[in-house]
Amino acid sequence: MALTLQSYSANRWIGAGRDAVEIPSAVDGRVVALASSEGVDFGAMVRHARQVGGPALRSLNFHQRAELLKRLAVYLTERKAALYELSYDTGATKRDSWVDIDGGIGTLFAYASRGRKELPSERFVLDGAFEPLSKHGSFVGAHILTPLHGVAVHVNAFNFPCWGMLEKLAPTLLAGVPVITKPATSTAYLAHAMVAMIIESGILPPGALQFVAGSTGDLLDHLTGQDVVSFTGSATTSGKLRDHATISRNAVRFIAERDSLNAAILGPDVTPESPEFDLFVKEVMREMTSKAGQKCTAIRRVIVPRARLEAVRDALAARLGKLTIGNPRSEAVGMGPLASQQQRRDVRESIARLATEAEIAFGDPLHCTVADADAEKGAFLSPVLLHCADPIRAERVHHVEAFGPVATLLPFDGLDQAIDLAQRGEGSLVASAFSYDPAVTEELVMGLAPFHGRLYLLDRDSAKEATGHGSPLPSLVHGGPGRAGGGEEMGGLRGVYHYMQRTALQGSPAKLSALTRTWGPGAPIRSEAPHPFRKNFDKIAVGDTVETPSRVITLEDIEHFAHFTGDTFYAHMDEDAAKANPFFPGRVAHGYLILSFAAGLFVDPAPGPLLANYGLERLRFLKPVSPGDSIRVRLTVKTKRSARMPEYGEVRWDAEVFNQDGDTVAQYDVLTMSARPA
Amino acid sequence: MALTLQSYSANRWIGAGRDAVEIPSAVDGRVVALASSEGVDFGAMVRHARQVGGPALRSLNFHQRAELLKRLAVYLTERKAALYELSYDTGATKRDSWVDIDGGIGTLFAYASRGRKELPSERFVLDGAFEPLSKHGSFVGAHILTPLHGVAVHVNAFNFPCWGMLEKLAPTLLAGVPVITKPATSTAYLAHAMVAMIIESGILPPGALQFVAGSTGDLLDHLTGQDVVSFTGSATTSGKLRDHATISRNAVRFIAERDSLNAAILGPDVTPESPEFDLFVKEVMREMTSKAGQKCTAIRRVIVPRARLEAVRDALAARLGKLTIGNPRSEAVGMGPLASQQQRRDVRESIARLATEAEIAFGDPLHCTVADADAEKGAFLSPVLLHCADPIRAERVHHVEAFGPVATLLPFDGLDQAIDLAQRGEGSLVASAFSYDPAVTEELVMGLAPFHGRLYLLDRDSAKEATGHGSPLPSLVHGGPGRAGGGEEMGGLRGVYHYMQRTALQGSPAKLSALTRTWGPGAPIRSEAPHPFRKNFDKIAVGDTVETPSRVITLEDIEHFAHFTGDTFYAHMDEDAAKANPFFPGRVAHGYLILSFAAGLFVDPAPGPLLANYGLERLRFLKPVSPGDSIRVRLTVKTKRSARMPEYGEVRWDAEVFNQDGDTVAQYDVLTMSARPA
Repeated sequence: MALTLQSYSANRWIGAGRDAVEIPSAVDGRVVALASSEGVDFGAMVRHARQVGGPALRSLNFHQRAELLKRLAVYLTERKAALYELSYDTGATKRDSWVDIDGGIGTLFAYASRGRKELPSERFVLDGAFEPLSKHGSFVGAHILTPLHGVAVHVNAFNFPCWGMLEKLAPTLLAGVPVITKPATSTAYLAHAMVAMIIESGILPPGALQFVAGSTGDLLDHLTGQDVVSFTGSATTSGKLRDHATISRNAVRFIAERDSLNAAILGPDVTPESPEFDLFVKEVMREMTSKAGQKCTAIRRVIVPRARLEAVRDALAARLGKLTIGNPRSEAVGMGPLASQQQRRDVRESIARLATEAEIAFGDPLHCTVADADAEKGAFLSPVLLHCADPIRAERVHHVEAFGPVATLLPFDGLDQAIDLAQRGEGSLVASAFSYDPAVTEELVMGLAPFHGRLYLLDRDSAKEATGHGSPLPSLVHGGPGRAGGGEEMGGLRGVYHYMQRTALQGSPAKLSALTRTWGPGAPIRSEAPHPFRKNFDKIAVGDTVETPSRVITLEDIEHFAHFTGDTFYAHMDEDAAKANPFFPGRVAHGYLILSFAAGLFVDPAPGPLLANYGLERLRFLKPVSPGDSIRVRLTVKTKRSARMPEYGEVRWDAEVFNQDGDTVAQYDVLTMSARPA
Repeated sequence: MALTLQSYSANRWIGAGRDAVEIPSAVDGRVVALASSEGVDFGAMVRHARQVGGPALRSLNFHQRAELLKRLAVYLTERKAALYELSYDTGATKRDSWVDIDGGIGTLFAYASRGRKELPSERFVLDGAFEPLSKHGSFVGAHILTPLHGVAVHVNAFNFPCWGMLEKLAPTLLAGVPVITKPATSTAYLAHAMVAMIIESGILPPGALQFVAGSTGDLLDHLTGQDVVSFTGSATTSGKLRDHATISRNAVRFIAERDSLNAAILGPDVTPESPEFDLFVKEVMREMTSKAGQKCTAIRRVIVPRARLEAVRDALAARLGKLTIGNPRSEAVGMGPLASQQQRRDVRESIARLATEAEIAFGDPLHCTVADADAEKGAFLSPVLLHCADPIRAERVHHVEAFGPVATLLPFDGLDQAIDLAQRGEGSLVASAFSYDPAVTEELVMGLAPFHGRLYLLDRDSAKEATGHGSPLPSLVHGGPGRAGGGEEMGGLRGVYHYMQRTALQGSPAKLSALTRTWGPGAPIRSEAPHPFRKNFDKIAVGDTVETPSRVITLEDIEHFAHFTGDTFYAHMDEDAAKANPFFPGRVAHGYLILSFAAGLFVDPAPGPLLANYGLERLRFLKPVSPGDSIRVRLTVKTKRSARMPEYGEVRWDAEVFNQDGDTVAQYDVLTMSARPA
C-alpha cells in the first residue's frame, strides 16, 4: 500500500491533492508513495515561518539552538532503522544509506558541537575586531552578524534525501532562521519520514521547520531580501530559480550547488607499482559505483598520464567486472539501481552524447546482469567507463554530466595539460590528485584551486584514514565556482553565516561596548571594590576593572629571573650585546618576567569564585622594560561566555601593562573560568 | 574644446567612434567631453586581462601588490589638483570633490596598509585553522583562498567617479585580479583623467587595468565563473546585468549596490534641548545637500517621534533656507547642481511621485535661486523636504528613491513603529540612530541590523570625531540586503576575498603543511643542529624544531616563584583549598611559571639572528602540573612572514609543553623577529 506524502505547513499536515504523482520504487517499480502539494497555501507557509518560527528561533541564543540540534540528532539516531528500511527503495545499498542517514545525523551532531564551542552564548556574533575610526578614539566601528528575519527555502536533490536536507538544515537553524524544505519528488518518501520524526519529536519550536511534498507552487513569489534559497540539483532548474523575477528584484540570497564534472588526476610520478596507483583505481571505482554514481561529487573525468592509460583502464575494468549489481537489500550486492527509470533514460542519453567523443571501454549501457531483481522493472544500469583519446579537442566530456555510474578516461601529456583539462570542467565541487611528489602536488593545487571548492589530495600517508573524494564534510566548504553554481555550504561556521546579515556598527566605544557585550579601548571601566575575582560569574560585568599599584623591576629581578628560569638570553644579561640589538636600548626585562609580575600585581589570592586562568591570547610586547622601570596593570572584563558545564562561566579579560610614563608595554587577553552560584 | 574620451584596451588607447555621445557640464551645459566605445573589441579586452594582467598580478605576493597600491596612491596625490579642477563640471563643490578624490586615494592607502599588515607574504591566504578529519591525525583539512583566474568588471555610478572606481579597484588588485572599469558616462571624463594618470604612471603591470568609455557592448557575453561583476547604480540596470544569460549560466559572481532608502531615526528620548537633537538636524541637512544629495547612502527617510515632528521640520527648514546653491567653483556655495539635466528631470519626477503621499514642507522642485550660474543651463535643484503624515499606510515614501537633495519626514508612535518604518525600506545600505539612551539604541540596533549593511549610532560622546552617516569607510562593509542589492564591498579584507576562491584542501599533515607553508600537528619536524635560533630568517624552514631536555618543577620552585612575583593564588599555595577547586588535584605550578621555565628550556642565549620574542598567541593550559612533575618543550617553526623592515622577518613557532607522561600541559604560538642576512 503506497504512502500518501503530506506537506507540513503552519503546524499541520496537509493531505496530498487529487493530482498526486506516483513515486515508484527504484528496485522493482511498484508505487511506494504519492505526492502533491495541491492545496498548500505557500504564502501562509512563508508568513508562518516569518511570524512564528523566526521569532521563536531568534529568542534562543546559539548555545540553546546548538542544544536543539543535538537533541534532534539523538532522537533520529534512535529511530534510524525505519529510515534505512525505506531507503532501499531509493536504490541505496546499506552502505549508501549510511552516508545518507548517518552522514546526515552526523552533520547535526557536528553543528551542535561547533555551535557550543565556537559561538557565543548570545543572539549575535561579533565578527572581527573593533576598528579604530578616529584619531582620539571617541568613534569606533565593529561588525555584528544577526539572523535574517526571513525564511530559508531549501530545495534538495533526489540522491541524498536525508543528508541533503540535514546539511542545509543544521547551519540554518543554528543561525536562527526557520526552514521550508522541499525534497526531490522521486525519493521524497524518505525525507518525509525523517521530517515526520522531527515534527513528532517536538524538539524544534513551531514554525522552525515546514515541508513541501510535491511542487513549490508560488512559494518563490513570496520571498524578500530577508530570505534565502539554497538549491541542489541540475543547472537547468537552478537557472530557473535564480532568474525568477522575485528573487532577482528583491536580491533574495541564492545558493546553488549544481552540475559538476569532477576530475581525479593521477600524478605523472605514479607508476603501477606505487601505492598511489592502487589508491587511485580504488577511488575511481568507488566513486563510479557508490550510490550508483549519483553523487554531485562523483569522479566523472579520470585524468591520467598517457603512458598510464592502459594500466588504469585495465585495472578499472578488472574491478568493475567483479561488481555485483542488483537488489540493494542483498548483502552480496555492491551497487543498486538508479533512483528511477527516468534517471536511467537520462543517463543513457548522456552516455550516448559522450560516446560521440569517446569510446566505451567497459560496460553496456543497455544491458546488465542483476542479482535478486528484475533488470527492467528496476532502474539498473551497468557502470560505464569511456575513453576519450583526444580530450583537448573534445567538449562534451568536459560538459555533459552523466549522473550515474559513468566516468571517462582522459589522457594527458604534461602537468600543464592535466590542469588545463581539469579547468575545462569550468568549475567543479571537487578534484582529487594522487601523487607522492610534493612539486607535482603543489603545481596541481595552485592550478586547480581557483576552479574548485575542494581538493582531495591522496597518498600513502593519508590513505588509511582518508574520508573519500566524494564525501563533503561539515568542517569543510562544499560547493564550487562556475558550472558547480558558485555556492558554498557547511565549512563550519561559514555555512551558518550565509543565513545571517553582517552589519557594521559605528559609534562611541561606550555604545559599541554595550551593544556587543565586549569591552574595547575607550569604553567605560568600573574599578570599585570588591576585586572582580571575588565576584561570581553572574555578578561579573563587562567593564569591571582591577587597577593595580606599580612595582619597580630591578636589574636584580632580571638576573634572578634569568638564573631561576634558565632564560639567560643576551638581551637580558649583556648590556653591550643588548644595545647592539635593533629593538632594545640595553638590557631589558624578560617578557615572561613582565607577565609573571603582572599576575602578581592583579591576583587576588584567597579562594573565591575565580577558579583558574586557563589561557592567554593576543599578547604583544609593545615597549621594552629597562631595569629601574616600574609597571602597573589594568585588567578589565572584556567578554563573558557560558561554559560547557553549567557550574562555570568563561571570562575574558583585557590586560594592559603600563610603565611609569603611562606607555603600554604589553597587552593581552587573559582567559579565566569563574564559578556560578549553586 | 571638448575632450574625446578613449577606452584603454590591451595596452593601448582606442579612439572614440563616430557615435560618440556628448557629455555636458552640470554647471553650464557646455559640452565637456565625448564618449563612445565603438570599435572596442571586448573579447580581446577580457582575453588580455586573463592572459596578461591576471598572470602578472598573480606572480606577485600580497605585500608586493600592497606596495603597488601605495605607490599609486602617492602618485595620484601628487597630481590631484588637475582632478579637482575637472570635478567642478560634475557639479561637485570642493568639499564634494574631497570625498571623491581624496576619499578614493585614501582607500588605496588603506588597502595598501591592510595588505601589508594583515596578509601574508604569499600568493594565497590560509583561511582559518587546520581541521582534524581523522582519529589518528593522518588526514587533515585546511582552507586556502587563491585569486580567481578571470577579470573583475566594475560598473560604477556617476556620483563618485574617483572614489567609486578606487574603492572597487583597491581590494581587487590586492586580491590579484585584473580589472576592467567602466564609469557612468555622465561624469566619465573625471574617471578617464584618473585612469590616464594610473596608466601613465606605469606602476601597475600591463593588463591589470583596462577602461571602457561609453557602453560595455558585448563585454558580459565573455564572462565565466572565474569573473566578477561589481555594479553600483540603479536597481533597473542591476537587474539587467544580474539576469544576463551568461552571468546566470556561468554563475559569474555578481556584487550589486543599488537603490537604498536610508533612514535616520531620532530616539524618543531626545528633546530639542538634547545635544543629539542638533546633531540629528545637522546630519540630515548635510546628507540632503552634500553632493546635492546624489549619494547612495544619503538619508531619504527622516523618522522622528510624532511629538518632535514640528521641531525637526522647523529646524531643518531654517537651515535649508540659509543654504547657497550655485556654481560649485564659488567659495560661498554650499551645494552645486545635480550631475545632469536628465538627473534633474528624474528627481523632479520622483518628487512628484512622493508628493502623492507626502506634502512638501520645504523647497520648490521647479525653481531655485542660484549664485554665480544660470539656473536653467545648469542642473540646479532646490533641496526638497517632504512630510508624510501617515507613513504606515504610505508606500512610495519607502520605495521611491529621489536621487537628489530630497528627504521625507516620517513621524512614528513608539519604537516598534520606528523599526517597522525603517524595515519598510526593504533593505538599505545604512541607517542612523540618534539617542543617548542605551535601551533605545539596543532595541533599534537589534531591529535594524538584519536590514542594513551599516548602522551609524551618533550621540554627544562620538559627535566630534564621527565620520558621517553617508561615508562608507574602507574598514567597514559597504552594501546592504534586499533593495540595496545584497552586495558587500570593502570591510577590510572581506572585500578582497570576494575576488578569491575559497578551496578546502584535504590530505596528510605533511602535504598540507608543505602546501600552506604552515606547520601543523602531525607534519614532519626537523630537529638537527644548529639550534634554529642560530639560523637567519632566510635559512629558517617551516618544521625546524627544538626538542628540549626536561626539568622537574619542585614545590620549592612554586613557592619561590609565588613569593618572587607576588602571585600567591591559593591553587599554588594551599593544598586543601587547591583540592577543593574542580580543576586541580592539589597545589599546582603557576601557568606563568610553566611558560617561564619553558623559555628557559628552549632559549639559545648567545647573540645571533634571533632578535626578540615580541608576542604570544593562542595559549591554553591543558593539564595541571603538580610539584614533582617534569616538563619539556617542543618548539617548531610554524610560519614565516616578511616584516615591515627588510632587515627582519617574523617567525611564528608552535610551542608544546609536555609532562613526564608525554601529556601536553600547555600549547601556544611564540612570535619572534629574526634578522635577515645583510
